[in-house]
Amino acid sequence: MTFSKPAKPFLAALAGQRQPRPPVWLMRQAGRYLPEYREIRARAASFLDFCYTPAFTVEATLQPIRRFGFDAAILFSDILVVPDALGQTVSFESGEGPRLDPITDAEGLSRLKAEPDWQKLSPVFETLDRLKTALPGDVALIGFCGAPWTVASYMIAGRGTPDQAPARLIAYRQPNLFAALIDRLVEASAEYLARQIAAGAEAVQVFDSWAGVLPPAEFERWCVKPVAALVAKVKAKAPKTPVIAFPRGAATQLAKFAGMAGVSAIGLDTAVEPAAAVAALPGDLALQGNLDPLALVAGGAALDEGIDRVLQGFGSRAHIFNLGHGILPETPVAHVERMMARVRSA
Amino acid sequence: MTFSKPAKPFLAALAGQRQPRPPVWLMRQAGRYLPEYREIRARAASFLDFCYTPAFTVEATLQPIRRFGFDAAILFSDILVVPDALGQTVSFESGEGPRLDPITDAEGLSRLKAEPDWQKLSPVFETLDRLKTALPGDVALIGFCGAPWTVASYMIAGRGTPDQAPARLIAYRQPNLFAALIDRLVEASAEYLARQIAAGAEAVQVFDSWAGVLPPAEFERWCVKPVAALVAKVKAKAPKTPVIAFPRGAATQLAKFAGMAGVSAIGLDTAVEPAAAVAALPGDLALQGNLDPLALVAGGAALDEGIDRVLQGFGSRAHIFNLGHGILPETPVAHVERMMARVRSA
Repeated sequence: MTFSKPAKPFLAALAGQRQPRPPVWLMRQAGRYLPEYREIRARAASFLDFCYTPAFTVEATLQPIRRFGFDAAILFSDILVVPDALGQTVSFESGEGPRLDPITDAEGLSRLKAEPDWQKLSPVFETLDRLKTALPGDVALIGFCGAPWTVASYMIAGRGTPDQAPARLIAYRQPNLFAALIDRLVEASAEYLARQIAAGAEAVQVFDSWAGVLPPAEFERWCVKPVAALVAKVKAKAPKTPVIAFPRGAATQLAKFAGMAGVSAIGLDTAVEPAAAVAALPGDLALQGNLDPLALVAGGAALDEGIDRVLQGFGSRAHIFNLGHGILPETPVAHVERMMARVRSA
Repeated sequence: MTFSKPAKPFLAALAGQRQPRPPVWLMRQAGRYLPEYREIRARAASFLDFCYTPAFTVEATLQPIRRFGFDAAILFSDILVVPDALGQTVSFESGEGPRLDPITDAEGLSRLKAEPDWQKLSPVFETLDRLKTALPGDVALIGFCGAPWTVASYMIAGRGTPDQAPARLIAYRQPNLFAALIDRLVEASAEYLARQIAAGAEAVQVFDSWAGVLPPAEFERWCVKPVAALVAKVKAKAPKTPVIAFPRGAATQLAKFAGMAGVSAIGLDTAVEPAAAVAALPGDLALQGNLDPLALVAGGAALDEGIDRVLQGFGSRAHIFNLGHGILPETPVAHVERMMARVRSA
């Protein structure tokens, strides 16, 4: 029996078809570890300007594809363009991360627009439209958004914090207010993803980077259910487009999440043992992950062993090779090359 | 059948005997949320001076017992007195957390003493000795240390970081160097706990606060095995003294940890679903935890519901009521009183 190579191995894996060698992409694959990214980034006045300028975002998206030949390209953007388009003040301090004018009460919530300013987001759709034709024929195009909980946690804290306590406190003290914000984000994000798909995204990923800070009952209420609602709305508009969810830190709640989210694939963080995920998650779900980004920084034997554990652990399943979290800015390019060679020769 | 009230309900629960209402203590129960603590803390020149002055540490340990009537008192100290006694430079910047002169190579490791300066740690033992007679007869006295991985992660980074990446990188790149540091900490910590027990500690807790940042293979190598070695050494010297381990963030690795650590009880963090822990962990293990410290800050219905979920979830087991992480400085004293009333009337 021979495999006939699918047109886009990444999409075939998302459809549940195990590939002879796993397709590869890396979260944050376009970014600061690449000298060619730093070069174009320096030309933009701000990070948000960069995100809203298709000449930059198209180029940034293509750079890692040219250099490493990944099987998927992910739209260069940021999850916080949604609060920006909802009218919240968003900026990025260099080296400091995002800064937002925090929403802490009903009055703050009332200042948000009912739906995103789609004109403001039009550069995102233009980027996807241009990428459709710019990408090699076997490379898939991924769109994305942040999950409601994760985006809300930034909107309330005004920044990243060690455990997003400000949002967790609001959720405890003013659950109705918090639910209203989450509902707004479910609606906005579903429409945002549907428009990305209409513009050319062949798959979309929902990043719930802060899922891990919530206790089980809050995890179900603020992560699982909103993501499930968001996915259902996307599926209603684009039933054939696969959705990947990345509930970072879901840990013991992972099977519950996978059972309820309605997605085609789950992105797994570094804490997940591959064999345990294979055993615990539904067999028709593609699994994506989960090399430790620090092993990619470290290189050498630690990198090789980490790669091999991922390849062996997921070997029996439709698997997409990725990191367990975003690639770190200090990652040597040579280590990414070494990783690609090892995955390809597996 | 009636329960005869044991002399110390906390120790009875650690021995696996389910209590009519769970004994209670809180991680960091002596500390900044108490005005009487802030008052005495202001009299010491530095946090380390405070930790090494029995007049302060005895009083700080007793304060929450007087105010709330907890069932156990925990030695007031810090996990970083061990690196301090090993000769590393340690200080605490106010509002900034600990600062250590980082160990990044073999030369740095070689500057550490072979064993702790026990004279430097003598105030810790004196504190325990004085507490033995100062505590009410039904209140147990807990000693503690940091787990090797957690202490090593501070010794290498020189501070707390979001994911203790510096130590994880050294562990990947220089595993022999890292193993030598871990071994040093296993030896020092085991002897330190044995001396705490000799001085009056009736139980000891090993805090592995940073266990959650390690991928599964590294978790087994750098958390589980060193804690198991540490516990075995303590047991060899003090076979009857119960040991509690708190592997914060162990998540899907919790059952493996519990099976290998050789402890009497496991402290559970906020991410653990009580019913799942009851089902997954050996029946002779007492379970300690795991109210969300932010629910205690929030108060109101969120607090009451959180307490009830903990009480109901662990109800069938020998359970010690505690938080899932340390109490936060902004916690209102009235919320702790409300919690105690609710647990007591359960």
